[in-house]
Amino acid sequence: MKLELSRVVQGCRLGVLTGLGKTGQHCLDVPGCLLYTRCATVPHLTQDTLHTLSDLPPVTQVTVESLAEHQEVLEEFKEGVRKFAGLHNTVLFSSLHDSVNPNPAGHVTNKTVSVWGSGGRIELTATRYMAIQAAIQPDCYQSMAEGETWQANSSRKRVRKAVDRTLAHLDDCLMLHQKTQELKQAEIFGVVEGGDIMEERLRSARETAKRPVGGFVLDGFHSAAMNQDVRGQLIQAITAELPHEKPRLILGVGCPDEVISCAEAGVDLFESFFPFQVTERGCALNFNFTINPDPETAGTSSRTVLELNGETPAVTKPSKNGDENMTPFEINLKDKRYQDDFRPLVEGCDCYCCQKHMRAYVHHLLVTNELLAGVLLMLHNMAHYLGFFKALREAIANDRLQDFKNRVLSCRDV
Amino acid sequence: MKLELSRVVQGCRLGVLTGLGKTGQHCLDVPGCLLYTRCATVPHLTQDTLHTLSDLPPVTQVTVESLAEHQEVLEEFKEGVRKFAGLHNTVLFSSLHDSVNPNPAGHVTNKTVSVWGSGGRIELTATRYMAIQAAIQPDCYQSMAEGETWQANSSRKRVRKAVDRTLAHLDDCLMLHQKTQELKQAEIFGVVEGGDIMEERLRSARETAKRPVGGFVLDGFHSAAMNQDVRGQLIQAITAELPHEKPRLILGVGCPDEVISCAEAGVDLFESFFPFQVTERGCALNFNFTINPDPETAGTSSRTVLELNGETPAVTKPSKNGDENMTPFEINLKDKRYQDDFRPLVEGCDCYCCQKHMRAYVHHLLVTNELLAGVLLMLHNMAHYLGFFKALREAIANDRLQDFKNRVLSCRDV
Repeated sequence: MKLELSRVVQGCRLGVLTGLGKTGQHCLDVPGCLLYTRCATVPHLTQDTLHTLSDLPPVTQVTVESLAEHQEVLEEFKEGVRKFAGLHNTVLFSSLHDSVNPNPAGHVTNKTVSVWGSGGRIELTATRYMAIQAAIQPDCYQSMAEGETWQANSSRKRVRKAVDRTLAHLDDCLMLHQKTQELKQAEIFGVVEGGDIMEERLRSARETAKRPVGGFVLDGFHSAAMNQDVRGQLIQAITAELPHEKPRLILGVGCPDEVISCAEAGVDLFESFFPFQVTERGCALNFNFTINPDPETAGTSSRTVLELNGETPAVTKPSKNGDENMTPFEINLKDKRYQDDFRPLVEGCDCYCCQKHMRAYVHHLLVTNELLAGVLLMLHNMAHYLGFFKALREAIANDRLQDFKNRVLSCRDV
Repeated sequence: MKLELSRVVQGCRLGVLTGLGKTGQHCLDVPGCLLYTRCATVPHLTQDTLHTLSDLPPVTQVTVESLAEHQEVLEEFKEGVRKFAGLHNTVLFSSLHDSVNPNPAGHVTNKTVSVWGSGGRIELTATRYMAIQAAIQPDCYQSMAEGETWQANSSRKRVRKAVDRTLAHLDDCLMLHQKTQELKQAEIFGVVEGGDIMEERLRSARETAKRPVGGFVLDGFHSAAMNQDVRGQLIQAITAELPHEKPRLILGVGCPDEVISCAEAGVDLFESFFPFQVTERGCALNFNFTINPDPETAGTSSRTVLELNGETPAVTKPSKNGDENMTPFEINLKDKRYQDDFRPLVEGCDCYCCQKHMRAYVHHLLVTNELLAGVLLMLHNMAHYLGFFKALREAIANDRLQDFKNRVLSCRDV
């Protein structure tokens, strides 16, 4: 695994992570995202439906949380999660928690962390954690980490303890990694903790960077955790301590504006749970990320700025169906205004849903609780989100990052 | 529309319903089923996923119940449900109620029947009913009917009233049909009511047959309604009164054993809500309907009798996850016994789910409430159910109906 950077613009690193997977033939463009799954499946979508999307990330993310209680079955099965879940040829990244699920605090000890399965809490020692990773058979995985110190009121002492424990877990994982046949070709990502305390963040980054890790996971930065400016400063300070040639994955950050600011602070990789969250609240991503490279062609594209900016996001006027977590990047298709809107979700979008269906029909599926609604929204939202990352990379490549940023953020000003 | 019968075996009518659809180019084999939908979509499945199934019925069923509250939108849209829902080229049959949903009694009057939408009760006069049918733009549709007399305790007087009302509704619908441009090429199916009172059933059948209808709907025969023997006798008596060249569709009957006995009583068409019900309880159809035409090849087929009969249906030993509505034709994949069962749902099944996934994985999706479970089960269950109908027709064609029946019913004896 090797990160080859081609340019850095406004802090954003453009590059390719090469040599991924068992045979090393996969590569992943950065800034980019992993493919979010639950139980190793992109929610609602069969592999065949998923593969109607273009620009799918070659790296699929699974979590120990969703697989821990299937450890024995996976061990009996012997061939890893990729085959167990019938996944196509993909690189597998295994992390600890699912960023969408709340993870109750107060269940860590010096030697253990906990995850919640359908049968309740599962306490993991480093040994058990590594046994589960061995059963999963990922290509890359994060080390065990104690990430309970993101709350603003965590004491300096508590944060120091979390950093120490996480480093100790990493050392345990690295030692066990050596001995585990199933993980022989896998890469381990060290986890940077430290809450909102700069000193601890720097210590965590420096110490982790000393270990033989393939990359870094930045934990404890999810949207609810802290002020965006504080986060930006912390991440910038952390990434300055990390070697340039290793990728940095941030957990829990998915909203487009936050993705851009984290990328500017030096983050390479993101999760893609955000389109799933949008889907679950019955919404469709429809923010504009298209910058016309040639102003003279503006207006001739089927996805023109006018069309998209003409949209008033439903979030500005919450309906009774409104979801308090809605962002300005989406429209609420449960809203009555869409019942006779015969346009696709996003004009010019080439996803299956937008090619075949109208807002009015998706509205109709949503209000009658029809199960196809989730399938169609998930397809569109994932397509739109992957398109956003692709456009971000193109903007960096073409020196248009500021235009891109203005375009994406413009929906917040409506 | 014309029903061409090729043979009748043990009462089962084998034939082809030709001349279906606007251009008359579609045909439907009988005994057969309509494609069940909710809101014009097969639950969980996109059109593209659906069309990975072979032997899909060319007739899609939609209901006034699920579309009534979208009447205005459909009228504004003007192009009918087929286009509104993005359906592929299909014949559209529109009925009144969704057989899966309970329909509260006590809401009929001389002039109206009621359906329940997401916004509550909608009272329909014949005029409103026909306006909704006009907005739907079906190729065939049932006339408005009063079907509240299936309860065993309905008085003769009450049943007589229901038959009278249903005939009056038919006459109203026929009159309005003439005047409705959107329904000009559509066929109307008259509804036979009469509860469990033979005399009223015969009167309903004879009177309906006098009207210019394209086919017949047998209502009030769903599984909970009456004893199977009584039902068989009633249906046999009804179908003897109906013209041979017109199709008979029964509502509310889906379980394979009941389908066979209704077919033997002269029913041509069924709904296909049954695979959806099985899916919703986390189960997979896996009854055997394969009869080896040549006994010498028995055992060489990938889907051998032994393999399938070796299965002990979970229904014989209900687990805590068991559903009281489970039938002997299905296995409960939520059951713990499947957690390390690395076989497909049905050995030899060529559906997408069985080709790509194992029982253990589907179990895992179900116990963690993953949304793909419904997609995969719906695909398999619909494929299995359509295979059952195809095998039924082949058995009639090859004079093997009794063997087929024995095979299908054998799972009840385990």
